Amino acid sequence: MTDTDLLDTRRQQASTWFRQLRDDICAAFERLEDEASPALYGETAGGFERTPWSRPEGGGGEMSIMKGHLFEKVGVHISTVHGEFKPEFAKSIPGAADDPRFFATGISLIAHMTNPHVPAVHMNTRFITTTQSWFGGGADLTPLMAEDRCEDAPDAVAFHAALKAACDAHDPAYYERFKAWCDDYFVLPHRNEPRGVGGIFYDHLNSGDHDADFAFTQDVGRAFLAIYPQLVRGRMNQAWTEDEREAQLIQRGRYVEFNLLYDRGTIFGLKTGGYVPSIMSSMPPVVKWP
Amino acid sequence: MTDTDLLDTRRQQASTWFRQLRDDICAAFERLEDEASPALYGETAGGFERTPWSRPEGGGGEMSIMKGHLFEKVGVHISTVHGEFKPEFAKSIPGAADDPRFFATGISLIAHMTNPHVPAVHMNTRFITTTQSWFGGGADLTPLMAEDRCEDAPDAVAFHAALKAACDAHDPAYYERFKAWCDDYFVLPHRNEPRGVGGIFYDHLNSGDHDADFAFTQDVGRAFLAIYPQLVRGRMNQAWTEDEREAQLIQRGRYVEFNLLYDRGTIFGLKTGGYVPSIMSSMPPVVKWP
Repeated sequence: MTDTDLLDTRRQQASTWFRQLRDDICAAFERLEDEASPALYGETAGGFERTPWSRPEGGGGEMSIMKGHLFEKVGVHISTVHGEFKPEFAKSIPGAADDPRFFATGISLIAHMTNPHVPAVHMNTRFITTTQSWFGGGADLTPLMAEDRCEDAPDAVAFHAALKAACDAHDPAYYERFKAWCDDYFVLPHRNEPRGVGGIFYDHLNSGDHDADFAFTQDVGRAFLAIYPQLVRGRMNQAWTEDEREAQLIQRGRYVEFNLLYDRGTIFGLKTGGYVPSIMSSMPPVVKWP
Repeated sequence: MTDTDLLDTRRQQASTWFRQLRDDICAAFERLEDEASPALYGETAGGFERTPWSRPEGGGGEMSIMKGHLFEKVGVHISTVHGEFKPEFAKSIPGAADDPRFFATGISLIAHMTNPHVPAVHMNTRFITTTQSWFGGGADLTPLMAEDRCEDAPDAVAFHAALKAACDAHDPAYYERFKAWCDDYFVLPHRNEPRGVGGIFYDHLNSGDHDADFAFTQDVGRAFLAIYPQLVRGRMNQAWTEDEREAQLIQRGRYVEFNLLYDRGTIFGLKTGGYVPSIMSSMPPVVKWP
């Protein structure tokens, strides 16, 4: 196999994986949506609506959005795009300074839940190639109720344990490093608050062993797919009060503030002609700044 | 009078004016709040709550916030602060490159209305001194309903006429220039949409005649004080539907997107240790991204 063929194969394998993971996650979320108690959530379960999009520069993606009763709003998006970075941006991307061509494939997910006791969640993994290639991504949990917003709360403990297991299976140093990276990244400096209870975040991962890095990225996806539905199932039957719903809607404001003020992916996407409906689908469905 | 005394007098006069304007606006808004029809808005009118704050570096301000029935959330804030710009920022400020000391006094107002037919509004004027001194500010109108979001809609026409009159009394070139500046500034590039129907925006205004520039800035405040209550009074008794309220809450999302992604004042304030409750009081009270 030539180097070019090998790279093409790797791109294909990654994009096929992200699509498969998307299908598995959507199926798991729809099962949860169907299981949700009619007494708490009403009779009508939602389902994902899929919208393909393409971009003139090359490639495209598929949005999957569910506006349900348990999942108030969840987007599970995949995209596989290629093109050329703009010169001023290319400088800051590994391997793109002299050749701005890039390829990127990935999955991106944000879930905002109706029930204030069920944490919101974000997960994203991707494979990028320039003259170099690497994986990146992560997952982090955002409980909305104050009592759940600490690292020793049960949901946070279980979420971290699942990600740690995925990390430890590949490199004993990963979890500590990627957890710290997540803690550093998901912070609202103007509030002096973390966005949630963390998780893992990694970027520019190229250990020299592509298959190992891909396997790790797959395991992050599998860990997410195992743990988040488990957390939802453990919480979804807990009733909530109007005051708790109000607190949830206010806490969601912090999510908006982070995404629009600090999130590199959101800001980069919006300022460089990304697909706006897909990017903005991360916004919570209802938010309050009282 | 020495130059220093003269500058002190100017700073005092400006800050006294902004405080007086704040008092007049708050009084006018409370009158409107009291006039609001009980049939549409209920029996309980709101009133402004005033919160003083100070900053360790020097100076402070006063927030005035009303969460009422006609005014769903309105902030009318004044501040008079001094200190030193950080080196990297000082470079970009006229007259601060070699001496980072500054003084700033101003008023800043954003009103989000309960009734979807009543436009939201923003007004801000300020006097800044470094080794130079200048006025800046403006006012712009943001109707929430699609049919009001064009420049030939009646509210937009009246709002622009009021600001044009204030401009024309001082310089026949001001309105065209400051209207264009406003149009350029209040844009959401990622949506390819203006934020509202515009108004005027000006900065670094120093014509060489301080008294004339101050008089102009006062007239912008007076024009706002005359026209906005008139627009509110003309619209406040118009009933609204649930669909119109929904459309209002969605349109408010654009306001959030603008403020957090693009508004220089908001971003600068949040990233440089500004007074967060005052800055974030510009966020709409309820927002939807369905």
